[in-house]
Amino acid sequence: MTKLVTNAAGRQVPVEINGAAAVPFQGAGKFVPDGRRAAPPIRACQDYPADGNKVVGDIKTALRNAGLRDGMTIGSHHHLRNGDMVANAVFQAAAELGVKDLRWFPSASFPCHAGMIDLMEQGVIHHIEGSMNGPLGDYCSSGKMKGMAVLRSHGGRWQAVQDGEVHIDIAVIAAPTADPFGNATGDRGPTACGLLGFALADSMYADHVIAVTDNLVPFPCIPWQIQGNNVDQVVVMDKIGDASKIVSGTTEITKSPDRLLIAELTARFCDEAGIVRDGFSFQAGAGGTALSFALFLRDMMRERNIKARFVRGGSTQYLVDMLEEGLTDYILDGQTFDLEGVRSMRENAGHVNTSPFTSYNWHGKGNFASMLDAVVLGATEVDVDFNANVVTHSDGRLLHGIGGWMNCLASKCTILPIPSFRDRIPVLVDKVTTLCGPGELIDVIVTERGIAINPLRRDLVDKLRDSSLPIRDIREIKAEVEEIVGGAPAAPDLGDKVVAAIKWVDGTVIDCVREVRG
Amino acid sequence: MTKLVTNAAGRQVPVEINGAAAVPFQGAGKFVPDGRRAAPPIRACQDYPADGNKVVGDIKTALRNAGLRDGMTIGSHHHLRNGDMVANAVFQAAAELGVKDLRWFPSASFPCHAGMIDLMEQGVIHHIEGSMNGPLGDYCSSGKMKGMAVLRSHGGRWQAVQDGEVHIDIAVIAAPTADPFGNATGDRGPTACGLLGFALADSMYADHVIAVTDNLVPFPCIPWQIQGNNVDQVVVMDKIGDASKIVSGTTEITKSPDRLLIAELTARFCDEAGIVRDGFSFQAGAGGTALSFALFLRDMMRERNIKARFVRGGSTQYLVDMLEEGLTDYILDGQTFDLEGVRSMRENAGHVNTSPFTSYNWHGKGNFASMLDAVVLGATEVDVDFNANVVTHSDGRLLHGIGGWMNCLASKCTILPIPSFRDRIPVLVDKVTTLCGPGELIDVIVTERGIAINPLRRDLVDKLRDSSLPIRDIREIKAEVEEIVGGAPAAPDLGDKVVAAIKWVDGTVIDCVREVRG
Repeated sequence: MTKLVTNAAGRQVPVEINGAAAVPFQGAGKFVPDGRRAAPPIRACQDYPADGNKVVGDIKTALRNAGLRDGMTIGSHHHLRNGDMVANAVFQAAAELGVKDLRWFPSASFPCHAGMIDLMEQGVIHHIEGSMNGPLGDYCSSGKMKGMAVLRSHGGRWQAVQDGEVHIDIAVIAAPTADPFGNATGDRGPTACGLLGFALADSMYADHVIAVTDNLVPFPCIPWQIQGNNVDQVVVMDKIGDASKIVSGTTEITKSPDRLLIAELTARFCDEAGIVRDGFSFQAGAGGTALSFALFLRDMMRERNIKARFVRGGSTQYLVDMLEEGLTDYILDGQTFDLEGVRSMRENAGHVNTSPFTSYNWHGKGNFASMLDAVVLGATEVDVDFNANVVTHSDGRLLHGIGGWMNCLASKCTILPIPSFRDRIPVLVDKVTTLCGPGELIDVIVTERGIAINPLRRDLVDKLRDSSLPIRDIREIKAEVEEIVGGAPAAPDLGDKVVAAIKWVDGTVIDCVREVRG
Repeated sequence: MTKLVTNAAGRQVPVEINGAAAVPFQGAGKFVPDGRRAAPPIRACQDYPADGNKVVGDIKTALRNAGLRDGMTIGSHHHLRNGDMVANAVFQAAAELGVKDLRWFPSASFPCHAGMIDLMEQGVIHHIEGSMNGPLGDYCSSGKMKGMAVLRSHGGRWQAVQDGEVHIDIAVIAAPTADPFGNATGDRGPTACGLLGFALADSMYADHVIAVTDNLVPFPCIPWQIQGNNVDQVVVMDKIGDASKIVSGTTEITKSPDRLLIAELTARFCDEAGIVRDGFSFQAGAGGTALSFALFLRDMMRERNIKARFVRGGSTQYLVDMLEEGLTDYILDGQTFDLEGVRSMRENAGHVNTSPFTSYNWHGKGNFASMLDAVVLGATEVDVDFNANVVTHSDGRLLHGIGGWMNCLASKCTILPIPSFRDRIPVLVDKVTTLCGPGELIDVIVTERGIAINPLRRDLVDKLRDSSLPIRDIREIKAEVEEIVGGAPAAPDLGDKVVAAIKWVDGTVIDCVREVRG
């Protein structure tokens, strides 16, 4: 049995993960790291082609050249999202090479990677460390994965690689455009995905880096979002992804009256809290509510002739419109969610490529997340102490990744606009199934039944004291919801086995996920 | 006495430099490095201002905060060239703080830094590791510097920092524009210098990084040539440099008939050697001959409707004209030599910011230098085996830095267009005073008296066999020159003391410089 201890958040967490010691969460901003960052081996130019041509025949050859062997860690990125064809090809090749017990370290996995379940059954992949959206999360929840999953935020993944907590033996970087030297960009090519920030740490810290492209251009590939100087080999594939599934093409604002109300209340809250002022900044996701929030904000800005200094993407056509209309000086973008985002990143100097290093790495000299005036995020559950969950459902199943969510909690005002219940299951609970964000960092909950301000934010409580907005106690909203749906959610049916550890932004373990029975 | 051994080039070199073991040169491409790269300490966001404002009062405060103490190494860059005011201010502040025995590690020093001689006399600075142009080189040559100087190429400086050979305690980065978080760019502001590539390694590897600017802008400073995530503190000064001395304003083509002839011969050689073809690449410096060469090349390209894929800068108005005229797809630029270069870097997407990492670092996975079809460089001396010197004069005085010169020797065709004598002193000699480039890497010498092809380049010799160009034996040209000027240069009057070590691109010692007597 995995040995557990109680961490500073009162959660039982493993002290060892897949054979390596783990540090329990000590409170936000409390863990003090030491030592120096990890660093890749020193290479020498005499061992690389003088003409800069690093192209090799195929992925299998590249893996063989890279010295792939049992137990290695393979890094990959998820900018191709549910259209990715590279990770599957890599592990298929690894299987053909007869290699076992690999650790797959993606920045996230998607339903298109469901084939990895077979490879886990065959022993090719030992376990996955990375967000698992859908079937792989379900497989993990069932307790069938050999090793323990580790879920990290985007910033936490950077931190883990940077600090040497995760050593990547071979990084495979799907590159929508690349040159033979390995310079690569995501902002153009038939499978353009915008940027490649999630692969940047892999390119810098892995022992061996393979760029895989379906659009080889003559040196130099400009821009070089990934630098060829970090790349060992280049592989050309017919198709690295299914373009129709990489970007959603168009992201839609919500049509639900409840969600529209939540979005509007969120925007009005930002206004009354004094956040919407000239030179401010905000971040909202690509979900329907978040997009609608951005549009309400946009209308306010237009009306009052207010301009943002920057907005943070995930970019969409809506943010691009704001940039091109002059409502913001910059989009600081971590991923492009639609084709307009890709185009804008290619065309607009004010649409800037960022990475988890610039935006989210907690073990850096500051990062962008804490500078944001407001950030708008989702959650699967929030409890009465404002603790929130984004990875499991109330039935205990692990179905979502963390993304940049944890990192964004560092903002000056973190707002969770959420429905108070979904499918007759309350979102407001006594205690979240899995703790992903400590309540002290979550400032405001906006539901269709009212807005709850975290009492720790005395300043916000005071400022909104005479507001016409429906400011309410979180427990009161929760009670009202339980009245409607007939009580709190049923306790999930969980086994003892820990199937996944949830890492806080500093690499400590904030919670874990148990096997789901039945 | 410094213990010396004979290296693979037959030069006597020290086995120890300022108390640390040194590896003698083993031949180009022969030294095999091992181990991992250096890495900075792991930091944590809780120790930096959440609002991103890292501005402190002045340089002295910043140095104190950084923990400056005796014997530390201070890194600085030379993009402000002879107009730099920051390095002087830093060491003045260090002197006021009473600190001793610092190692100054600039990417280069200029006559404007002559005040450092006083600080060396006072014991504030122990020695300089970096190119010394003018008075500091002269001071070093006189044998008065406490420690041994170490001269490295731009790529060698990156390699030394990256490999942990030189540990920078505090990097001070003069930044023409910066935001309070420390993001910085050189391409705008009252003291714009174009780019900041020479400071990039310092920002990535130093324990502590201070950005000094005279143009503070609101976050985010775009582009961020230096990333604020690597910066600890920001200092605002009234003036970081004398703009009139940062860039020469306008660089001039040569008017000397001899130099024009050399430039033309060089261009015609490139043509007959088959180098000037569609999609080719070249690098030439900002000296009068090199600029004239570029113009001859440009005329050929126009005439034949040939386009380069890329040219490497040091950029000047001439390269910018070529870019804007469509004669090259890209300028891959390491430093801007004039105001047109600065403007173009700011305005043209095809004018790309590079660094010693991308272009010159020998301990990387390849670099750009070896991909160039032709590179045109200067030299103070060349010997009959095509070995060349760029740092000392025939009288032994150390007056010049290495720059990117050594790194460029990796190109497909390295050409040195040089006058056969200067001030009645022959440039062609039996044995160079200081070896900076092994003859095996130098392919062609072009003088006003003829072109000498290195016999090791059988292919070039064969190709030019029936050329109308004045192809001659190097010894024959040398004899002719000695006839004119009355013999070989007098042997320099040198003492035994080694005042400077010359490091090859891989960190080994290729030669050393002796104290000059008299």
